[in-house]
Amino acid sequence: MSRSIAINEQRLLDSLDAYAQIGSTAGGGVTRLALSDEDKTARDQLAADLAAIDCPVVVDDFGNMTGTLAGGDNGPPVRIASHLDTVVRGGGFDGALGVLAGLEVLRTVRDLGLTPRRNLTLTNWTNEEGARFEPAMLGSGAALGVFEPGWTHERRDGRGCRFGDELSRIGYLGDARHRPLNAFAGLELHIEQGPVLDDADEPIGVVTGIVGITWIDVVVIGVSAHAGPTPMPLRRDAMVGAGEMIALAHAIGSQGGSPRASTVGRCEVEPNLINTIPGRVRLGIDFRAGSDAELDAMEAALREGAAAVANRHRLEIEIDRFWISSTVQFDPDVQSAIRRACSAVGYSARDVWSGAGHDSRYTADRYPTGMIFVRSRGGVSHTERELSGPEDVCLGANVLLRTALDLADA
Amino acid sequence: MSRSIAINEQRLLDSLDAYAQIGSTAGGGVTRLALSDEDKTARDQLAADLAAIDCPVVVDDFGNMTGTLAGGDNGPPVRIASHLDTVVRGGGFDGALGVLAGLEVLRTVRDLGLTPRRNLTLTNWTNEEGARFEPAMLGSGAALGVFEPGWTHERRDGRGCRFGDELSRIGYLGDARHRPLNAFAGLELHIEQGPVLDDADEPIGVVTGIVGITWIDVVVIGVSAHAGPTPMPLRRDAMVGAGEMIALAHAIGSQGGSPRASTVGRCEVEPNLINTIPGRVRLGIDFRAGSDAELDAMEAALREGAAAVANRHRLEIEIDRFWISSTVQFDPDVQSAIRRACSAVGYSARDVWSGAGHDSRYTADRYPTGMIFVRSRGGVSHTERELSGPEDVCLGANVLLRTALDLADA
Repeated sequence: MSRSIAINEQRLLDSLDAYAQIGSTAGGGVTRLALSDEDKTARDQLAADLAAIDCPVVVDDFGNMTGTLAGGDNGPPVRIASHLDTVVRGGGFDGALGVLAGLEVLRTVRDLGLTPRRNLTLTNWTNEEGARFEPAMLGSGAALGVFEPGWTHERRDGRGCRFGDELSRIGYLGDARHRPLNAFAGLELHIEQGPVLDDADEPIGVVTGIVGITWIDVVVIGVSAHAGPTPMPLRRDAMVGAGEMIALAHAIGSQGGSPRASTVGRCEVEPNLINTIPGRVRLGIDFRAGSDAELDAMEAALREGAAAVANRHRLEIEIDRFWISSTVQFDPDVQSAIRRACSAVGYSARDVWSGAGHDSRYTADRYPTGMIFVRSRGGVSHTERELSGPEDVCLGANVLLRTALDLADA
Repeated sequence: MSRSIAINEQRLLDSLDAYAQIGSTAGGGVTRLALSDEDKTARDQLAADLAAIDCPVVVDDFGNMTGTLAGGDNGPPVRIASHLDTVVRGGGFDGALGVLAGLEVLRTVRDLGLTPRRNLTLTNWTNEEGARFEPAMLGSGAALGVFEPGWTHERRDGRGCRFGDELSRIGYLGDARHRPLNAFAGLELHIEQGPVLDDADEPIGVVTGIVGITWIDVVVIGVSAHAGPTPMPLRRDAMVGAGEMIALAHAIGSQGGSPRASTVGRCEVEPNLINTIPGRVRLGIDFRAGSDAELDAMEAALREGAAAVANRHRLEIEIDRFWISSTVQFDPDVQSAIRRACSAVGYSARDVWSGAGHDSRYTADRYPTGMIFVRSRGGVSHTERELSGPEDVCLGANVLLRTALDLADA
């Protein structure tokens, strides 16, 4: 491969800026929930950008979009993929970087007049974040057979809107024959969303695997009553139990070191009035670990501790482990291709572990998959302050370009 | 006073049933937030019911409604008062019992053709609960000079609606000259909202005073980040701090015995997503105690403990004690009149402490005031299961009738 092959850096940075305007927030971030009006605008822009370089776009029955740059044969493609949806008040890099770097790769290949052996495709997965419709990675999971199509279309957001209805509303309910089922190799460029690369002062990481993740709903049930006249010993205060469950989850996640972690990100209180003893508190807990067995042990510790909390405060505690994403190891050959590309642009990239789930978690079960991480300034993501520097972003896109061409001609 | 003087029990129970339909919930309770459409309907009904017995109704500049049954002189009245607003999914007795028993007293006095020496008035205070506009007891506090009129009109509900605008919208923005400023004596019949009378198997209590209450906002500020990739030791997780603040508040309220109590009734999390470390958690804490000095000591313990929590988890914790209702002792002569009325209907009523705040807390600073409690089944209130039995309700209304006539002729 020519040493001079490179993306158009200004064009990539301009694209990142332009897409970050779609759903931009007052605080400098992006809110572009899956299947929202903002998501539709971003999708329409992507379809137009792909059409402009003669890459036909198809949409499957879960809204996953795929554009293809024709290669020399008609076999399985090298598939670059990520997502355009965001969390509420997220940033402009999580997901968008992978899609727009992929777009830049296709534009560069076309500009250079190259025709690799294999097709190069770009896929935008639907609802990766799980911020609007749970669970996360819904589009890739549904397309790749993890979730039933009917069940997927019945998912509802917090306001009761159906996933299937929202697909139709924004014009992205396509055909099952366009599901992105196969590939010679899958590639995803993504921001790290953590502090490891930033702490090590390295711009790029080769991802070796994804931690196992499980989501658990904890419902603490007591008896609601007026705050004043009920003596403390006679109370069944769900908030008191919830406070102890938060401490318990934190203790469980703090044992054993990284990548093990726990987060209580969600708390909903009924009736949530300052002068009423809460009768019901629902907590959403996220556990992560380096093996599925460790996740099971964390859940067992949570159940054991919850029984003690319930007994101590005369409460009921219901525990529902409603989602799991098993630990994943990425393909060694794809990792090697990424390392060669890093060397070609002058870096000996560090191996890193992904603490976050990605759509590549599901593709790894179907075809050889690898991921490239770009440093996140301060390690923060899912906030308006999310940032990856322009040099790092362009370096990552060049690694993606070289890895894709390497695999497309392999 | 004649031994045969008594209210029309069926008429009172029918009124309670009819008003409980205004804002009735699927679960058998009532949601009639202050200045809502439901509150307007209840107010219109009360005005019509008073007009039907020739009691002219006036409205002040905070929506407080007063109807008057003319007595023999034109001096300060015996004022019966309570409130028609409820919390979300509350019951049909909290507040409504006091207003409708007062209405029944006026109806009975009129039916019997009595003309007591003093005027008998009935006042419906606005926004007693504080469930829509904070603080609680806003209408009585504003009318009696505790709150500035302009500040009061600027209060906003959770959706940003102004108190003053909502008064106008429902047609209850009246004139400052109709504020219920004075009385020979004030009386409020109310459900106990606690388990003391029910535990003692007694239907009626003479309230000796109201506990001091203070409301404190605690804002725990950390750094929001993606749940997965941030190692536990590098986090600044606001939820972890909030969990410890809940435990701290509970410990403070559990020391020293009743009536001391603490409740964390409200918790709001940002951004409240299962896979994002919370950057900000706001807790609403309610402290109650038998003296103002004890409330101060509870606040001091909270501040001291919060500093330790903040330090331990690298968080900021802001504490804002935004409202206080000082401890109140009710008037001994009014208490004596209530005891005489209890004796006349055959009960030696128990002295009880009010753990909840009431509008009578403010009237007690202006004129001699007393309260009568009716047993709450199971001690519960501010829930759809709130219930006081028909015999207890009628007994309480008869005690109110006799006390009012006693004081009106004193």
